[in-house]
Amino acid sequence: MLYEGKAKKVFATDQPELVRVYYKDDATAFNGQKRGQIEGKGAINNQMSNLLFQYLAEHGVPTHFVEQVSERETIVRKVDILPLEVVVRNVAAGSFSKRLGVLEGTVLPRPLVEFYYKNDELGDPLLTDDQALVLGLASQEDLAELRTRALEVNRLLQERFAACGLALIDFKIEFGRLPSGEIVLADEISPDTCRLWDKDTHQKLDKDRFRQDLGGVEDAYQEVWRRMKGGLSA
Amino acid sequence: MLYEGKAKKVFATDQPELVRVYYKDDATAFNGQKRGQIEGKGAINNQMSNLLFQYLAEHGVPTHFVEQVSERETIVRKVDILPLEVVVRNVAAGSFSKRLGVLEGTVLPRPLVEFYYKNDELGDPLLTDDQALVLGLASQEDLAELRTRALEVNRLLQERFAACGLALIDFKIEFGRLPSGEIVLADEISPDTCRLWDKDTHQKLDKDRFRQDLGGVEDAYQEVWRRMKGGLSA
Repeated sequence: MLYEGKAKKVFATDQPELVRVYYKDDATAFNGQKRGQIEGKGAINNQMSNLLFQYLAEHGVPTHFVEQVSERETIVRKVDILPLEVVVRNVAAGSFSKRLGVLEGTVLPRPLVEFYYKNDELGDPLLTDDQALVLGLASQEDLAELRTRALEVNRLLQERFAACGLALIDFKIEFGRLPSGEIVLADEISPDTCRLWDKDTHQKLDKDRFRQDLGGVEDAYQEVWRRMKGGLSA
Repeated sequence: MLYEGKAKKVFATDQPELVRVYYKDDATAFNGQKRGQIEGKGAINNQMSNLLFQYLAEHGVPTHFVEQVSERETIVRKVDILPLEVVVRNVAAGSFSKRLGVLEGTVLPRPLVEFYYKNDELGDPLLTDDQALVLGLASQEDLAELRTRALEVNRLLQERFAACGLALIDFKIEFGRLPSGEIVLADEISPDTCRLWDKDTHQKLDKDRFRQDLGGVEDAYQEVWRRMKGGLSA
């Protein structure tokens, strides 16, 4: 094992450029202050993330995905994860609503891209472009590329989720750099990292059910996965 | 009286385009959670701010300043204050150091401009450019103008303070819009709104002495004003 994170373990393979990721059922929130288990989450997140990474790759977005090897395990390209978490918001929710006083559910006039400093000890603080540059966390070119990629991923995901009756409220993605210098989409895309609401009822079908103790956490993950697998929903 | 803030009162005059500002000795910190009095602060901040606004105006920076009418009172042009507080940092300190894990005293590779949402209820949260735009708090042109002005003010203030043996660590300024649409520097520039360290000893000579209970608060304000008035220091 190379690394154990909050929701995944990463193992070496016999090929130095590839690693094996194992998805756990462990769930954390509020920078690790809240902890629990969501039964079956690892299997759903792994399969759903792989499905979406393949969909994005087919539409021109380079990713770290190589091959799913079991319900909970996937081979991915080894990358250096960039120290910026990239968040895209279509609708106000979560920390954005709270920090800036915008009612949850307010549709933003256009998608908003935010960068956060990937640093558990500091609680992943929000970064302005200028802060990221002055701290040497990214170059101006990197920021522009991440922003363009993030908006493209948002457009594609919105379309894919809409076909399942799901509204993509916001999501967090991470990028990694290959030895060649190329930046590719990495980490995962799942109900752990996306806010997904039923398009009509606005029912929350994501990790906010765990964060906010809304109950029905496992059911929500399964419902999302059922809709994604099946293509079009009712 | 038109308005009472944390450190100032604003009164109408017999001319609708002018207001009279009265500087109090009241001090607050941490978004009003800490309160106190700094004896003589009002008189020092008023006179020092006026001296600096006149200096900036002489060097091409338009400001709201019109005329000092007493130790604690000044006539200024009436403006609509923009909802963004503009912070310029030359050296890491305060919330920047804490949030981003940069040791206080670290000299930044270049001056950093930050925007904060001027909203007491929300605790004046940091804003990215994109957030300010999406929330409709400013236009792209406004942000560019504020950034340029802030860096120019920083350059001029650094020079002025250096001549008094003071290092300008960081500062907060506010801008207002005249009825004509022109943006001018407003509010105040004082040890309440600047971090000022003795150039050689790095002794703090600003509101951090109050925030951090370092003692000698009144003496620090008086020492800064003594050096400013007198021009060159020892």
